[in-house]
Amino acid sequence: MEARTLIERKRDGGRIQPAEWRALMIQYAAGDVPDYQMAALAMAIFFVGLDREELGALTNAMLDSGASLDLDHLKMGRVDKHSTGGVGDKVSLVLAPLVAACGVAVPMMSGRGLGHTGGTLDKLEAIPGFRTDLSLAVATRQIEQLGCALIGQTREIAPADRKLYALRDATATVESIPLIAASIMSKKLAEGLTGLVLDVKRGSGAFLPELDRGLELAQTMIALGADHGCPVVALLTAMDRPLGRACGNAIEVEESIAALRGEGPADLMSVTYALGAEMLVLGGAASDRNEARRRMEVAISSGRAARKFQEIIEAQGGNPAVVDDPGLLPQAAECELFVAPRDGVVAQVEPRAIGRGITALGGGRTKVEDTVDPAVGFVITARPGDVVRAGEPLATIFARNEAGVAAGVASLKEAIRIADEADPPLPLISHRVTEAGVQLWDED
Amino acid sequence: MEARTLIERKRDGGRIQPAEWRALMIQYAAGDVPDYQMAALAMAIFFVGLDREELGALTNAMLDSGASLDLDHLKMGRVDKHSTGGVGDKVSLVLAPLVAACGVAVPMMSGRGLGHTGGTLDKLEAIPGFRTDLSLAVATRQIEQLGCALIGQTREIAPADRKLYALRDATATVESIPLIAASIMSKKLAEGLTGLVLDVKRGSGAFLPELDRGLELAQTMIALGADHGCPVVALLTAMDRPLGRACGNAIEVEESIAALRGEGPADLMSVTYALGAEMLVLGGAASDRNEARRRMEVAISSGRAARKFQEIIEAQGGNPAVVDDPGLLPQAAECELFVAPRDGVVAQVEPRAIGRGITALGGGRTKVEDTVDPAVGFVITARPGDVVRAGEPLATIFARNEAGVAAGVASLKEAIRIADEADPPLPLISHRVTEAGVQLWDED
Repeated sequence: MEARTLIERKRDGGRIQPAEWRALMIQYAAGDVPDYQMAALAMAIFFVGLDREELGALTNAMLDSGASLDLDHLKMGRVDKHSTGGVGDKVSLVLAPLVAACGVAVPMMSGRGLGHTGGTLDKLEAIPGFRTDLSLAVATRQIEQLGCALIGQTREIAPADRKLYALRDATATVESIPLIAASIMSKKLAEGLTGLVLDVKRGSGAFLPELDRGLELAQTMIALGADHGCPVVALLTAMDRPLGRACGNAIEVEESIAALRGEGPADLMSVTYALGAEMLVLGGAASDRNEARRRMEVAISSGRAARKFQEIIEAQGGNPAVVDDPGLLPQAAECELFVAPRDGVVAQVEPRAIGRGITALGGGRTKVEDTVDPAVGFVITARPGDVVRAGEPLATIFARNEAGVAAGVASLKEAIRIADEADPPLPLISHRVTEAGVQLWDED
Repeated sequence: MEARTLIERKRDGGRIQPAEWRALMIQYAAGDVPDYQMAALAMAIFFVGLDREELGALTNAMLDSGASLDLDHLKMGRVDKHSTGGVGDKVSLVLAPLVAACGVAVPMMSGRGLGHTGGTLDKLEAIPGFRTDLSLAVATRQIEQLGCALIGQTREIAPADRKLYALRDATATVESIPLIAASIMSKKLAEGLTGLVLDVKRGSGAFLPELDRGLELAQTMIALGADHGCPVVALLTAMDRPLGRACGNAIEVEESIAALRGEGPADLMSVTYALGAEMLVLGGAASDRNEARRRMEVAISSGRAARKFQEIIEAQGGNPAVVDDPGLLPQAAECELFVAPRDGVVAQVEPRAIGRGITALGGGRTKVEDTVDPAVGFVITARPGDVVRAGEPLATIFARNEAGVAAGVASLKEAIRIADEADPPLPLISHRVTEAGVQLWDED
C-alpha cells in the first residue's frame, strides 16, 4: 500500500479496495501515513466521492482501528440517536433516559460543541461532578445495570476516525457526505448497536442547511447501516430556529429535566417523542410508533424517566439532586431581560447568531481546547410567528458580568428579527427516511 | 489570513486574493501553515483550477518568498529554456553553451531526475568535479563573464515553491496545470529572464502525454509570462521515443559534446536548433529564426560552441578536458550489445521503459535522496520505423556488473518492440505556440 498511489487513483475517479482502506487507516492511526497525504485524499474524496462498497470498507477500517463495546449478551435491543447538531438541541439528554426507562438500551456516545453548535458532553458536564470519560469496561457495566451510559469518544474507539476528524476540520474537508457518514457510523458501530436513529437538521442553523444534502446524508447512512446489520431510520427536523427555549449548557440541562417531567416546550417534546418512538420500535420494545409513544408518555408521567436520569447522573459521579432541585446547577451572576424593540411579528430567531452569542458569553468553543462556562446562555421565549409589542420580553440573557450582558444583547439584536410580516418557519419534522424511501411527515 | 478559510473558498470555486496568496506562501515557507493544509489546497486547485489573476499572484508569492538573480545591468538578452522532461533529453547541455556563444545570456536553473525522466543536474555532475550548487552571487559573476551558468534551484530561490513541489510529489497533486505553471515560472522569473522557451514533450514518455494537456500548459505559461513581462514561446516535441541515442548521464554528456561539434544525431540537432532559434530571437541576437539558425551553425562549425561549454565546465569546477577527450568521463565496467530478436520493423522504443531501465541499472532515482551512478545507461541506435534483421545490434548496454547487464536486457526487451508493421511515430516537432496562437510546425 503506497498512499500516493491511492490518492492518485481516487483523484482520477478510481476505487480503493477494502484491503487498501484497512492498511491505509492502520498506518494513518499509527502515524506511518502523514497528515498531508490524508488531507489530499480527503479533498479528493470531497470532489470524487466514494461508492457504497468503498464507504463500507472505510467505515470498517476506522471501526477496526480501535475497540468496540461488546453488548451481545444483553437481552434487550441497543439503539442510539445521532443528531447532525444544532442550537438548543438538548434532545439527547431527554431521550437517552426516556428510552432506557422504556426497556431499550442506549449506549450513547456524544461530542463536544464547536463553532455555533452545542455538544451533549458539555451540557452533561454542567451537572456538578458528572464524568463522561468512562472506560469501555465501566460503560459496559453501567449499560448492563441501568440500560444507558452517556460517554465521549474514548481513545479506545475508532482512533483513525478521531485523528481524521480533527484533520478534516483544519483542511475544509468536513462537508463531504461519505466522510461524514463513515465517521458517524464507525463510532456508532463501535457502540454495538442493533439500530440507530438519525436526527438530520435542516435550515439556516444546520450543518447541512439544504434539504437535498440532508436527504443525501440520511440515505447514505441508511445504506451504510443496512450493509452492517444496523438498521437506520432518519427524521429531518427544523434548525431554522433553536429547539426549545434554553440555549446554553446548564440551562439546557434544566429544560431537559423539565421535559423528563412532561413540562418541556412543545417542540422539544414533539421531536423527542418522534425520535424515541423510532428507537423503541427499532429496539423491539414496541410494535409500532403509536404504542411506543404511549409507553414514553407513561414513563414520563410515572416519574420513571426522570428517575432514570437521576440514576445515570449518580452512576457517572454527578449530583443526582439536580433532578429535584435544578437550582443546584451552576448559576450565572447576571441575568437580564431582552425586550422587543418595536411592535411586529417575530420573523426570525437565527440559530447561528444565537450559537455565536453563546460563544461570546463564554459558553461555546471556537477552538477544540477552549473551556466553556456552563452557566451562561439565553432562554428565548419568542418563537417565529409570535406577534409582539415594543418592550415585551423576548428572551433572558445569563452572563458572567456586565460585558457579557452587552455581548448577549448584541447577539440577540442580530439573531431576533421583528418585521411587519413573517414567512412561515420550516415544519418541525418534515421527512422520515427509511430503507423503503423518503416519506413526508404527516403525524402530530 | 486563515488557511482553512482559503481552502474552503477555493474548494467551493471562489478566488483567493493576491494579498492572501502572499501571506499564505510566506507563512507556508516559514512553517506557520502546515503541510496538511497546503496539501488540501493543492488538491482543491487540482479540481477547481486557478484563474489568470490568481495564477499570477501565486507565482509572485512564490517568487517573492526568496531571492532573485539581478541581471538588469547586462546589456544582452537573458533567455532560458525549460523542458517538461523526458528520456534522452540532453538538449539543455547543448543549447546553453550554444546560445551563450551566440550572444544571449543563459542563466539556466535545472532539476534532478526523478521517476523515469532524467535531470540536467545529474548529467552535468557526471563530469568529474562539476559543481551545480553555486550561490546566486557566484552564478551572477559567471553569467557576467561567460554569458551562462548551469545551476540547481538554490535554497535562496523560491523556497515556497521548493517546499510545495516536494509536497505535491507526495500527495498526487503534481499534474495540475496551474500549479505546474506557477512552479516553473516562479523559478524562471527568479533568473531575471527577458524571455523563456518552453519544450513541451508529448507522447507516451512525456509527463503530460496528451496533446491537449501539453497545449494547455503552453498557453497557460505564455499568458503567465506575458503578465510578468517575460515573453514565452513553446514548441511541442515528440517523447514517444527517446531523443538522440544516448540515455544515461555520462553517455548523454558525451553525445552533447558531439552535438556541440556538429556531430550529434539528427533529431537532437533539429530540436536544439529549433529551440535555440527561438532563444536567439527572444534575446535580440537575431532578427528572425533563419538568421538565428545560421548563427548557431557558425558557432558550432567554428568550435566556439564547444569552447563555451569547456569554459563553463572549467568555471564550475569540472574537468574541461572531457570536451576534447570524452574518455575522461566515468566509464561503465560492463558493456554489451542488445540485438534484434527477429526480423521486422522497429514499432516502438518506449521511453518510460527505457527510463525505468536506467533506474534499474543504478542511473536513476525512485526517491529524491537516491544517488545515481553516472556511467550506466543505454545507447540505442534503433529508431522507430527502422527495418531490422534478427541478430542485428539495436542498442548497447552500459552496466556496473553482470546483474546490471541482465536488468538492462530485460528493460530493452520491454521497451523495444519489433513487429511486421509500425505506425508512424509522432512528428519530432509538431506545434509552435506563441501569444499569437497555436501554429502547426512546418519547417525543416
